[in-house]
Amino acid sequence: MKIRAGYQITYDCPVPTPMILVLRVYPSRERDLVVADHPTFDPPLELSEYHDGFGNRCGRILAPAGKLTMSTEFLINDTGEPDIVAPDAEQHALEELPEDVLVYLLGSRYCETDRLLETAWKLFGNAPKGWKLVQTICDYVHDHLTFGYEHAHPARTAFDAFTEKRGVCRDFAHLAVTLCRCMNIPARYCTGYLGDIGVPLADEPMDFSAWLEVYLGKRWYTFDARHNMPRIGRILMARGRDATDVALVTSFGPCTLKSFSVVTEEVA
Amino acid sequence: MKIRAGYQITYDCPVPTPMILVLRVYPSRERDLVVADHPTFDPPLELSEYHDGFGNRCGRILAPAGKLTMSTEFLINDTGEPDIVAPDAEQHALEELPEDVLVYLLGSRYCETDRLLETAWKLFGNAPKGWKLVQTICDYVHDHLTFGYEHAHPARTAFDAFTEKRGVCRDFAHLAVTLCRCMNIPARYCTGYLGDIGVPLADEPMDFSAWLEVYLGKRWYTFDARHNMPRIGRILMARGRDATDVALVTSFGPCTLKSFSVVTEEVA
Amino acid sequence: MKIRAGYQITYDCPVPTPMILVLRVYPSRERDLVVADHPTFDPPLELSEYHDGFGNRCGRILAPAGKLTMSTEFLINDTGEPDIVAPDAEQHALEELPEDVLVYLLGSRYCETDRLLETAWKLFGNAPKGWKLVQTICDYVHDHLTFGYEHAHPARTAFDAFTEKRGVCRDFAHLAVTLCRCMNIPARYCTGYLGDIGVPLADEPMDFSAWLEVYLGKRWYTFDARHNMPRIGRILMARGRDATDVALVTSFGPCTLKSFSVVTEEVA
Amino acid sequence: MKIRAGYQITYDCPVPTPMILVLRVYPSRERDLVVADHPTFDPPLELSEYHDGFGNRCGRILAPAGKLTMSTEFLINDTGEPDIVAPDAEQHALEELPEDVLVYLLGSRYCETDRLLETAWKLFGNAPKGWKLVQTICDYVHDHLTFGYEHAHPARTAFDAFTEKRGVCRDFAHLAVTLCRCMNIPARYCTGYLGDIGVPLADEPMDFSAWLEVYLGKRWYTFDARHNMPRIGRILMARGRDATDVALVTSFGPCTLKSFSVVTEEVA
Repeated sequence: MKIRAGYQITYDCPVPTPMILVLRVYPSRERDLVVADHPTFDPPLELSEYHDGFGNRCGRILAPAGKLTMSTEFLINDTGEPDIVAPDAEQHALEELPEDVLVYLLGSRYCETDRLLETAWKLFGNAPKGWKLVQTICDYVHDHLTFGYEHAHPARTAFDAFTEKRGVCRDFAHLAVTLCRCMNIPARYCTGYLGDIGVPLADEPMDFSAWLEVYLGKRWYTFDARHNMPRIGRILMARGRDATDVALVTSFGPCTLKSFSVVTEEVA
Repeated sequence: MKIRAGYQITYDCPVPTPMILVLRVYPSRERDLVVADHPTFDPPLELSEYHDGFGNRCGRILAPAGKLTMSTEFLINDTGEPDIVAPDAEQHALEELPEDVLVYLLGSRYCETDRLLETAWKLFGNAPKGWKLVQTICDYVHDHLTFGYEHAHPARTAFDAFTEKRGVCRDFAHLAVTLCRCMNIPARYCTGYLGDIGVPLADEPMDFSAWLEVYLGKRWYTFDARHNMPRIGRILMARGRDATDVALVTSFGPCTLKSFSVVTEEVA
Repeated sequence: MKIRAGYQITYDCPVPTPMILVLRVYPSRERDLVVADHPTFDPPLELSEYHDGFGNRCGRILAPAGKLTMSTEFLINDTGEPDIVAPDAEQHALEELPEDVLVYLLGSRYCETDRLLETAWKLFGNAPKGWKLVQTICDYVHDHLTFGYEHAHPARTAFDAFTEKRGVCRDFAHLAVTLCRCMNIPARYCTGYLGDIGVPLADEPMDFSAWLEVYLGKRWYTFDARHNMPRIGRILMARGRDATDVALVTSFGPCTLKSFSVVTEEVA
Repeated sequence: MKIRAGYQITYDCPVPTPMILVLRVYPSRERDLVVADHPTFDPPLELSEYHDGFGNRCGRILAPAGKLTMSTEFLINDTGEPDIVAPDAEQHALEELPEDVLVYLLGSRYCETDRLLETAWKLFGNAPKGWKLVQTICDYVHDHLTFGYEHAHPARTAFDAFTEKRGVCRDFAHLAVTLCRCMNIPARYCTGYLGDIGVPLADEPMDFSAWLEVYLGKRWYTFDARHNMPRIGRILMARGRDATDVALVTSFGPCTLKSFSVVTEEVA
């Protein structure tokens, strides 16, 4: 399957403003790109790219005063298969986990494991472990939170979402990540493209999406507490401890988002 | 100068409990060790060591049920010089910062840059930049917070400390780190040994200490918002985004700290 | 498309022998695994896994005295598409290259850039740059070396292969990597599964294969100087500066390879 | 003790030439800098700095056509103590080594472990292990090679040095590194400043020096097969698998070294 995807984002900055961008296809998917994912800027400007400590491909720009439009459109090969389901994937004892996944057990800006630890054990302490535990957590988050774009709030943490019982895909992901970590399952936050391929009645406007990956059975698996079903055609952009690390645009100054559109669709 | 340092820490665990330990001299100081910093355990157990993504030397153990005492005592060469003071160290424009320091501008579990951004700019927006700005921030934190061991609270964030106006060295460091990041100065959290060498009237019990490092003039400099003066004989143990990353002991289960002692003293 | 792949390898060791194994699907392909790639050992033994500095998933074992058989068999989703061809992919000026690719311009154990620099510039100094230059280099290597399993030699370097004019896929890759680096194109060595999917008259026994990746047009592209054509169904296992870094088995003691088989085939 | 150190290096390039520079004090010593180590360029040019995968502070420049002089002079605190001697430091079993040191057991461009393995075991297979083995290797290398600046050769490998029986400090380090790796002791190549502090009859012109670090007793120790005695005042600049990774200047084009001077001296 081939997927066409891209975005067009416009900011308005009162003064020249440095920005960090995390807006590229994750390097592990580069081999599948048929038409390159090259961001373009209007007006043109210099982009300096690098990989951060999570393997994400980041860029730095100095956005000029005034409007800046960033866009890309690419074509990518995809297996066309839904997210893998592996009900037998086992949870690792802590002493068996590879060292580089341990950081995904710790708290982070929007995932306050210390504040949700007791809650997590009360809710899930008697649940079966492994894949089923993660699915139980995702079911819980899916049911506990009410989705709504009007509920988006950039500083909302997992604990906030838990108490307010609402949020957007980012909050679903943060809460599921936090609860998994509390239960000693390494979990990381993911962001990327997710179209409505294979979804009968998709009713949401196109946007980037957030989901999570958990470490079970010696590898990372994808879970999605927002949609709570295997999906086709995820195109990973970035991973991190939480949304802090993978913000699409981190602006060092007060800029305004003027417009935003994302496309992700199967190409016949 | 030679410094003798070490600790003795006893935990009591109801059941066998996995722990991550960050209790070693930071690798950059290993070359100065005259007598090795080898942690010992009573009862003996297996320690598996690794370096985390911040370069810290971490260990993993499975603490047995019952009491566990961890201890070390080492001898280390030191320059005997106080923390460097460099009033001319300049603040970098964001676009000039090396890529690997950018993560130290972002928020983290205990350093909510998003919640303190406005406050920081109101307080320091008109202050001179660079070294003086960091010193101004440390002066502010030093004055704003009341120190007291009775104020220790493991889940207190920088924002909490700011509003409660009190804390321990960890909170002083978190608040200074957060305010520096808000002002676009990369800042990281440090923990280690700090004796009372050269301090006329030291009145505090020995403990590990927390301080910060900021990136100015193409390198990292040490600041200490708690003591707010150059000190002799810091022995760095670990660095991270905040205390989450450098917790001396991260215990995956409910263990009790039974006793704790630290020594750091100049050897004649 | 789904591919079934795996190996069975038997060693005989005179005494217990530590080994480093690089025998797992590369982490970027984990998301495609339908049936897990879990190595098994006969007799059973303890495997300790980690990621090396190249992102490869490595394992450590203590092979017992006597015979040891290692095997896996997994099922993986694949796009079914051949290696991407991008004739317009441009070569970067050195000052534009991301910092983390610079190491792939340097010499390494089997890629003596210093010894082939002059040769490379004589051969290719007037060739067009970018994709075409890499293709010209691969054409040259493909024609210059005579393939033959009887020419396998574990210590043969790119310079040796160049002067002896023969080798196996490993030597084709090393020579192409070295020549690309000499011409200022970052190049890395890859190893993995490569079946004969889509190849009309495959006449070689199944084996692991070696190829290269080069950095052009802001991403890594796959080239294969041995087969010198786009292929379907590569399953990457490991990348590095050369074969040193991705040896399937690095044995710290004199063990004998007793048998070796690899399967890679499309599943109907 | 305070040490004043620096260099002045002049190149002449026929055309504008990209260069990678590894000419900074290693980050672990930054905290000791009293006067900054800021390289200056004549004519002035833009320096872009980064950390490589070994933690070295590297720079990139585009050297203009014509002469370019690079220089620095800094002041650094030092313990004034000689290299640590720890005769009881034990050699680790391979399965006990931390994962991130394993790469320092592998071969590299100038350290052909595969070609010297048999020799190493014949020479040292019966020697005591640990610190004594490394000292035995350094004694051997110190005696086996004849030192002489006229023997400098940029492409000489450890194997070449072994057979030619001569070299400069770089070759002493490469051969000792290689023999240590053959004997299963992780070893890395170091370069930096080394003055003649505490040396009664220093008769060599000032230059940068090369030495090695080996992993014993859970830490890295400094050895110096060239001088073969503990020295005072080493200022580390860079570490790597061998000289390839830490070349002071890697020039992507044919430039000529016109002059070169290094100073390292104790300040009263």
